[in-house]
Amino acid sequence: MREVFHQSLEDVQSRLVEISDLVTIAIDKATRAFGSGDVALAEEVIADDRLIDERALALDELAIEILAMQQPVARDLRIVVTALRVSASLERMGDMAEHIAQLARTRYPDRAIPKGLKGTFTRMGELDVQVARSLTELLRTQDLAIADHIRNSDDDIDELHASVFEKVLSDSWQGEAGATVDATLASRYHERFADHAVSIAKKMIYLGTGDWTGLEHGVVPVEPTA
Amino acid sequence: MREVFHQSLEDVQSRLVEISDLVTIAIDKATRAFGSGDVALAEEVIADDRLIDERALALDELAIEILAMQQPVARDLRIVVTALRVSASLERMGDMAEHIAQLARTRYPDRAIPKGLKGTFTRMGELDVQVARSLTELLRTQDLAIADHIRNSDDDIDELHASVFEKVLSDSWQGEAGATVDATLASRYHERFADHAVSIAKKMIYLGTGDWTGLEHGVVPVEPTA
Repeated sequence: MREVFHQSLEDVQSRLVEISDLVTIAIDKATRAFGSGDVALAEEVIADDRLIDERALALDELAIEILAMQQPVARDLRIVVTALRVSASLERMGDMAEHIAQLARTRYPDRAIPKGLKGTFTRMGELDVQVARSLTELLRTQDLAIADHIRNSDDDIDELHASVFEKVLSDSWQGEAGATVDATLASRYHERFADHAVSIAKKMIYLGTGDWTGLEHGVVPVEPTA
Repeated sequence: MREVFHQSLEDVQSRLVEISDLVTIAIDKATRAFGSGDVALAEEVIADDRLIDERALALDELAIEILAMQQPVARDLRIVVTALRVSASLERMGDMAEHIAQLARTRYPDRAIPKGLKGTFTRMGELDVQVARSLTELLRTQDLAIADHIRNSDDDIDELHASVFEKVLSDSWQGEAGATVDATLASRYHERFADHAVSIAKKMIYLGTGDWTGLEHGVVPVEPTA
């Protein structure tokens, strides 16, 4: 029974890694589409989000089946419940990538990336891709040191997020309302993307260390000072 | 054992109702603070969000305990897993109310509600409060007809959400960048609030009817055409 259970857990883990891989591809393409105005790339991200949703749903069904058939307790039970939550967060990360792609599509043939904030959004996109790659690695290796990288990148993204609002609300901002809307939404999506990754990293740390307190609902997104 | 289990489920249900009640109070206060510039009310919402987080966390722990101690299968298992998900969505609804309150606080002593969109945001706030009340009622009575009310209100909110972007991107929009940011974020928060409620309603319908397919990750938020 233990062997069956561990086989199931390996299956869960490899599926989480697979979904995280798809999310990495999605955010990479989405930020490139947002920066370059490549509408075909944006369309790909939007179409492929369905795959992420389907994989997440299939993983949830597997987790529920494991709960029903193998009735895990204690740490094993926590692992399965955590997998359900990680799956939900990955699915939301995919949604954030899709939303960024939707902004790119809506602006086409123009570029969605707002003038005066190109450097900021390029950097945010790079950091989100880096966060997604680290997350895949964390899920694959369960090397908790990777969680620190994710948190550091998230701190950098939060600073960039705050700087977007500073810029938009400064006297030097020349953007039209459309550019202000794009900057506001894109910045929010990037920031939420990384928040979800941090939330997953915290859950993985819990599983590795048993320190559960405050992790579940403890991830407070940094709000714009705007 | 069945009796113990049903006692536990009633406990879960009454806790969900309690959290939903707190969320209703939060969104009601938040939208009033947003409209009136009442910073004390905004502060209350922000402080009280911690209560919602704590209750949601406690409920999750109870659900995991039920899984461990009572090892439910089939529909009983689904109920417990669904409770975990409903709890997560309620917690996010609380976050949305908090974010709206944060916008109100940031703008103080001005009013955050953007000029030219007062009617729209007042209506969105009313609809969100109505959605939260219906949700509490749905969780309390499990009367699935209430799910339809929630979906109808959500459709109305989606229309208002789209109209905010139409307005902000129209030639008649006179708002400064700050008003554009506030309108964009507040509209997104209101829309997400209702989306979470719809997602919960769909899960309740599943539990009532057994029709699970596509419900888990099937709630696609309506994106602004901006």
